[in-house]
Amino acid sequence: MNKKIIVLGGDGFCGWPTSLHLSAQGYEVIIVDNLSRRDIDNELETNSLTPIKPMNVRLKAWQDVSGRKIDFHNIDISKNYDELLKLIESVEPKTVIHFAEQRSAPYSMKSSKHKRYTVNNNLNSTNNLLSAVVESGLDIHVVHLGTMGVYGYGTAGMKIPEGYLTVMLEKDSGEVVEHEILYPVNPGSIYHMTKTQDQLMFAYYNKNDGVRVTDLHQGIVWGTQTEETKKDGRLINRFDYDGDYGTVLNRFLVQAAVNYPLTVHGTGGQTRAFIHIQDTVRCIKIAIDTAPKKGERVKIYNQMTETHKVRDLARLISKITGSAIELISNPRKEDDENELHVSNESFLGHGLEPITLKDNLMEEVVEITKKYSERSDLSKIPCNSYWNKEQKSKASI
Amino acid sequence: MNKKIIVLGGDGFCGWPTSLHLSAQGYEVIIVDNLSRRDIDNELETNSLTPIKPMNVRLKAWQDVSGRKIDFHNIDISKNYDELLKLIESVEPKTVIHFAEQRSAPYSMKSSKHKRYTVNNNLNSTNNLLSAVVESGLDIHVVHLGTMGVYGYGTAGMKIPEGYLTVMLEKDSGEVVEHEILYPVNPGSIYHMTKTQDQLMFAYYNKNDGVRVTDLHQGIVWGTQTEETKKDGRLINRFDYDGDYGTVLNRFLVQAAVNYPLTVHGTGGQTRAFIHIQDTVRCIKIAIDTAPKKGERVKIYNQMTETHKVRDLARLISKITGSAIELISNPRKEDDENELHVSNESFLGHGLEPITLKDNLMEEVVEITKKYSERSDLSKIPCNSYWNKEQKSKASI
Repeated sequence: MNKKIIVLGGDGFCGWPTSLHLSAQGYEVIIVDNLSRRDIDNELETNSLTPIKPMNVRLKAWQDVSGRKIDFHNIDISKNYDELLKLIESVEPKTVIHFAEQRSAPYSMKSSKHKRYTVNNNLNSTNNLLSAVVESGLDIHVVHLGTMGVYGYGTAGMKIPEGYLTVMLEKDSGEVVEHEILYPVNPGSIYHMTKTQDQLMFAYYNKNDGVRVTDLHQGIVWGTQTEETKKDGRLINRFDYDGDYGTVLNRFLVQAAVNYPLTVHGTGGQTRAFIHIQDTVRCIKIAIDTAPKKGERVKIYNQMTETHKVRDLARLISKITGSAIELISNPRKEDDENELHVSNESFLGHGLEPITLKDNLMEEVVEITKKYSERSDLSKIPCNSYWNKEQKSKASI
Repeated sequence: MNKKIIVLGGDGFCGWPTSLHLSAQGYEVIIVDNLSRRDIDNELETNSLTPIKPMNVRLKAWQDVSGRKIDFHNIDISKNYDELLKLIESVEPKTVIHFAEQRSAPYSMKSSKHKRYTVNNNLNSTNNLLSAVVESGLDIHVVHLGTMGVYGYGTAGMKIPEGYLTVMLEKDSGEVVEHEILYPVNPGSIYHMTKTQDQLMFAYYNKNDGVRVTDLHQGIVWGTQTEETKKDGRLINRFDYDGDYGTVLNRFLVQAAVNYPLTVHGTGGQTRAFIHIQDTVRCIKIAIDTAPKKGERVKIYNQMTETHKVRDLARLISKITGSAIELISNPRKEDDENELHVSNESFLGHGLEPITLKDNLMEEVVEITKKYSERSDLSKIPCNSYWNKEQKSKASI
C-alpha cells in the first residue's frame, strides 16, 4: 500500500504539525517548502512568538524522538514547475497536501505589491500542482487547505452547506427544477479571492482530467501545539501574534499575556468559525482516508468545529485574564455584525471529536504566550493593513 | 470631457480594429501590447493569412488615412506592473479596455507549459490592471473582453441571462427566497477557466474598491475587416486559420478557399454563439458609452448576435463553395450535442443592428481568403491540441 505523502508548505503553521502527525501515523512524508513564511517574517520585521528551529534541526529532532525520517525539498512551486513535476514523478505519492499559499488576509491587502504577490503565488502554485499531477499520469489525491471565507459571511437565513448548494431555477417553460451548484462565493480579501479562484481550478481539472480533489474550507485556527510538536522543544510550532498573521483568538491570548488591551475591530459583532490546530491535523488525516473515488466530483468539507462572535471571545479572555478590551476602527471593509451557521457533518460523521474552547486548551496557549512573552514586539500587534482608501481614512480620524 | 482610452492588447484580432474604430470616433487611443500574438505565430510556425504590418507601419498608415495619431507602448502587463501603473497615472484615461489575454482554447490545452502560460499571463494581467487602477486613485472604467464560454454549453432549459441569475433558495425556516447570483460557471478549457476566474476579480475589486467594470461575454468572432481596417492595405486585420487560433467559421472559409474539406469535430452538434468583427467594435463603443455609475455592480453584456450548430455552418459554406465536409474525432472533451439560447437584450436595447450570416459579408471573407490563399500552410489546419489523454488516444485510432 502506497503510504507516500507530499506536503506542500510543510514548514508553515498548519503544514508543520500536519507533517509530523502523518509521519507519526506511519506515512512516508516528504515536505516541500520555499520557507517563504520565514522570509515574510523578515520583511515584516516580526517573528514567531515561539522560537521555531530551522528545518534541518526540526527534522533531526523528529528523527530523534520518533525514529522516523521526513524528507525536505526547498522548492518554490509557484515558479519551479519542472522541479515539482520531477519530484512527483520520482516519489509517486498517494496524496499531495497543498498548503503552499500565502494565507493572511491583511497581508494580501497591505499594498498593490502584496495583492500581486498573493495572486501570483497562490494561483500559479495551485495550477502548477494540478498541471503536474495531470502530466505525471499518476492517480494522485490532492488535498487542499481552503477557507470558510470563500462563502463570505452573509446571512442567507440558512446553514452554510459543505461546498454545494441546491437551488431552484425557473425554466423558460415555467417549470421549476433543482440544480446543485458550487455555493456562490463572496470573498472578503484578495487572499480569500484566490481561494475562490482555486475552487474553479479544482472543478475544471476534476471535470477534464478526473483529478481527485478534497477541498477543506477551514475556519480560523487557534492553539499552537499538537501531540507531536510537544514531544521536543525543537519541534515547537510557530505562533503568530502580529497584526497581519496573528489569528484573532491567538492574538488576544498574546495581548493578555503582555498586558496589552484586547483590540476588537469595529463592534466585534463578526461571527467566525474556529478550529483547534490539533483538530486541523486530525481532519487532514480523515480527508486522506476518505479520498474521493475515480470519477467523483471535488469533495468539500467544512473544517471547523464552533462559531463565535469576536467580542464574545474578547469577553471570555478578558474574564480569564483580567485584560481590558478596546474597540478600534475596523481596517477591513465588512459588515459590523453577521450570523454564521455552518454544516460540518462530514468530519463529525467520520468520527472527529472536536476540541472546543471549553476544553481548557486555552490555558496551554496562555502558558506558552507567558513563557515567550519577552520575545514579543508590542509595536507589531496593531493591524496596519487597510482594505481600501475609506478604511484607511477612517482609521486616521 | 476626457476622451483618452488605453487599449491593452491593441495589436490583436479584436484589439486592433477596436483601436482604429475608437480613434475614428474621436477618442485619443493609446495601445499597449507586448506583441505576444505575433510571437505565438513564430512558436506555432504559422502566420496570419492576411499580411499584417508591424505596429509602426500600421500606426503611420492610420495617421495617413485619418490624420489621427495613436500612441503605442510595448509592455507585458502580466509582468511589468510599474510601467503599467506609470502609464495609467500619466495618461489618466477615462476607460481602459482589456484584451491582453491569451485567447485560444486549443492553445491553452496543448501542454502543461501552455496551460501554465495561459493561467499566469491572463490572471496576472487582470489583477495587475485592477490593482493599478486602485493604486492610481483614478475613477477609471474597465471594459473587459470575456467569453460566452464562462457559462458552459449545458442546456438548463432556459435562456442564458446576461451574467446574473435569479435562483430560489429554501431557508432553514422553510421559507423560499430569491437571490441573484453570478451565473454558475462551467468552463470548457483552461483558457475559459481563466475568464471565470477573472470574473471573481472584477466582482471583488468592484465590491472592495468601487472599480467600475463592464465584462463582455463574447461569442465566436467571424469576419476580418471593419470599416476602418479596409481604408488602407497596411491596416489589414489579422486572419487566423490554424487549428489553434482559427475560429470555426473563419477556418471553414479558408478550408473552402484552398479546397480542403471542412473538418467538423464529432457530430458538429455543438451550438455556438457568433458575432461579426464589425459588431465587436460597435459593441465596445456602446460599452464605453453606457459605463456603470459609481457604486454600481459589474455590468455584464452578452456580446453575440446569433447562434448556430457547427454542422449547419459547415453545410451552409459547403453549399456556397461546393466544399466537402469531413467528420473527425473531437479533440475537445465536450458533449456532442447542445442547445444554446442566449439573451443579448442589452446591446440590442442600446441600438446595435446586428450583422448576421445572411448579410453577404461571408462573401467578403471568401474574397480575402482566396486573395491570400497562397500564404496558407495546409499542415496547420488540423487541431493538434487534445483536451486530455482520452481525447488524444481516440484521435490516434
